[in-house]
Amino acid sequence: MMESEVKRQVTLRMLKEYAAKSVYYVPAAVSNRHIHLSQDALEALFGKGYTLEQFKPLSQPNQYACEEKLTFVGPKNKMDGIRILGPVRSATQIEFSLTDAFYLGIPPVVRMSGDLKDTPGGKLIGPNGEYMLTSGVIISQCHLHASKEEAAWYGLKDGDSVCVRKRGLRTVLFENVLVRAGDTHSLELHFDTDEANSALIENSDLLEVVRSWEI
Amino acid sequence: MMESEVKRQVTLRMLKEYAAKSVYYVPAAVSNRHIHLSQDALEALFGKGYTLEQFKPLSQPNQYACEEKLTFVGPKNKMDGIRILGPVRSATQIEFSLTDAFYLGIPPVVRMSGDLKDTPGGKLIGPNGEYMLTSGVIISQCHLHASKEEAAWYGLKDGDSVCVRKRGLRTVLFENVLVRAGDTHSLELHFDTDEANSALIENSDLLEVVRSWEI
Repeated sequence: MMESEVKRQVTLRMLKEYAAKSVYYVPAAVSNRHIHLSQDALEALFGKGYTLEQFKPLSQPNQYACEEKLTFVGPKNKMDGIRILGPVRSATQIEFSLTDAFYLGIPPVVRMSGDLKDTPGGKLIGPNGEYMLTSGVIISQCHLHASKEEAAWYGLKDGDSVCVRKRGLRTVLFENVLVRAGDTHSLELHFDTDEANSALIENSDLLEVVRSWEI
Repeated sequence: MMESEVKRQVTLRMLKEYAAKSVYYVPAAVSNRHIHLSQDALEALFGKGYTLEQFKPLSQPNQYACEEKLTFVGPKNKMDGIRILGPVRSATQIEFSLTDAFYLGIPPVVRMSGDLKDTPGGKLIGPNGEYMLTSGVIISQCHLHASKEEAAWYGLKDGDSVCVRKRGLRTVLFENVLVRAGDTHSLELHFDTDEANSALIENSDLLEVVRSWEI
């Protein structure tokens, strides 16, 4: 087990004990811009039969950052070096911050992962070719991943909405954090870089969970 | 009077009437990266006796955006086209977002305007020369400008701290907004672009003022 995973398990055990005493904290992670590819897109960009190479595992079960990076071309600017996250998915999805969207010239559409209807598209450029998306580019809505058991520590279930607070010089309460609870999730709050910067949030920071009736 | 100023006066009158009925809203403004120059820096960068040319007035009394832009050189990257705000000040001050600071490679120090002790520096490049700063680069702490009379509408005074809420898909409560009240201020909440993006705030949006004892 990697050191980071040991640390994570120690943190989770501590958070469970605190929650049992009605002190509710969750660990945060900051998502930089990234790409999820469909099998079709992967083969168009890298060649038939290509397999992504793992760079490092992520906290969510079976998810990993890849060695491979791509270029995205927007109406106003292009951006190089955008990391791919694996494994491949049923649909290609690209997640940018609002700062990125303004730079690239794409309409900033805030969505939950997978909700891609009527989202903007763009062009991906890889080592073996290009891939045009007609949709799939989103600004991610902040959310809390949790297994069903972890969600229950906080009295939460899949589909709930919670508030989380980061204290500091920039104390911020995010009031519309969607809970995604299930077997494919592990306890972690996901923010994009704009949200992280607005509240000085860094990876592994612990944020306070505030139930809406306590605000 | 320009159309934008008429709109602003209408808004202020409405906000005063609402506040009298205990409904508290304030107008927001988003500050992009910008530079305030000292006379010394101005002359080093543009030449002796140079005068800044007004591009457009700002909401704060006697403040204006200038036609002139400069290049800033950080340890990791440089950035062109950073607008100067006038008039000149006693000390040169540059305000970036955290996103900018990471890109430029400068330590992100969150401060109120004017509080420049132990802040990072960098190099400015203008059409007539360069200017080295040993300090003066900050990430601005969000704040509420108001005249003494406007602050009183909300039961606030200079130095107070308030919470403000932006509602929407990204509902966010900023809990540490410093009040700067006095003759040189006019009612306006100032956020940097990271804060604005984290809560989908645009110029002239009205945000709810929440007194800390109501949270």
